[in-house]
Amino acid sequence: MKFLTEYIVMNVPARRDYINITPKIARLVEKSGVSEGLCLVNAMHITASVYVNDDESGLLRDYDSWLEKLAPHEPVSAYYHNRTGEDNGDAHLKRQIMGRETVVAITAGKLDLGPWEQIFYAEFDGKRNKRILVKIIGE
Amino acid sequence: MKFLTEYIVMNVPARRDYINITPKIARLVEKSGVSEGLCLVNAMHITASVYVNDDESGLLRDYDSWLEKLAPHEPVSAYYHNRTGEDNGDAHLKRQIMGRETVVAITAGKLDLGPWEQIFYAEFDGKRNKRILVKIIGE
Amino acid sequence: MKFLTEYIVMNVPARRDYINITPKIARLVEKSGVSEGLCLVNAMHITASVYVNDDESGLLRDYDSWLEKLAPHEPVSAYYHNRTGEDNGDAHLKRQIMGRETVVAITAGKLDLGPWEQIFYAEFDGKRNKRILVKIIGE
Repeated sequence: MKFLTEYIVMNVPARRDYINITPKIARLVEKSGVSEGLCLVNAMHITASVYVNDDESGLLRDYDSWLEKLAPHEPVSAYYHNRTGEDNGDAHLKRQIMGRETVVAITAGKLDLGPWEQIFYAEFDGKRNKRILVKIIGE
Repeated sequence: MKFLTEYIVMNVPARRDYINITPKIARLVEKSGVSEGLCLVNAMHITASVYVNDDESGLLRDYDSWLEKLAPHEPVSAYYHNRTGEDNGDAHLKRQIMGRETVVAITAGKLDLGPWEQIFYAEFDGKRNKRILVKIIGE
Repeated sequence: MKFLTEYIVMNVPARRDYINITPKIARLVEKSGVSEGLCLVNAMHITASVYVNDDESGLLRDYDSWLEKLAPHEPVSAYYHNRTGEDNGDAHLKRQIMGRETVVAITAGKLDLGPWEQIFYAEFDGKRNKRILVKIIGE
């Protein structure tokens, strides 16, 4: 069996943003030398997501306004979590909608993605260093 | 290590539907010859989901009306994504609630599912060919 | 390859609760002897979730009230599923928001978690025995 473990550091200047990380992950699959296997990609922080969907700017705006409607940032006082001194209660909820991780198949040495599938990192509480974990396992 | 990669083509006649694919996946596990391992099942299209829940017709109606409430199909003009000429903005949101993929354990040569767990394909923008990816890895 | 399969029985006295199971999972990783691999943790019942987020009591209250807003338990008659005699229609919906499973990397013999990542079992229809499946695969 072959394994690759890598940590990608993200520092998103905005509070919220949606960043296509597919090229980074594809390079790591190549580096791993794995031709058949699985690629786990997960946010290591609990106010961010890794998810798979379309890289279309209108859709990213739709996601952002929808998540704000389902779990609004303000009023900050609406969240018990924010009594700890944080203001990111909403971010912990948004992240549950979009998910922590994806597992993508590796076939013939490449990410086995559908025609429009792109791997995204979604930041809901930015302006600080955060990490993504990539774990590749296979042969 | 053993691997199996299969693509299942779905063509759902309705815009939205919820289809139990557990028997198809169980046959692929058998075909793989894997007795201990993992089975990844994911939608390869970004307006569809693979998820695990109950095969009960009332629940499927509940899911459908709930998803319509959280991310209504109409008005189509409410989604920036639909300015691209699509009318499936809602489908990209519904799919995030229900998820892209599931990873199911294989134990003693079978899908290791709980008593009511069934693997579903949820279509949110049907009437066209779409694929499900099944990747089995183990020994 | 090494494998470990374990079933953890949960019996939560309340209808809904959020329980940190990270120490249990960490012990199973140690027991498995796997130093590089993947650890799948999933609810085997369809009215419960396994998810990863912060162990902070305010946040757990926020999750609970948010899930009740998105998919209220009452009126029980609002769910077609409850015509089967159940009263847990809401629980099947809440579980989709929070998810069925997580896949966590194992690196150097340990769960490779971020600083605040904790693995939770979320119960949405308690007062009965339910199981969590842990499947560890690697080398």
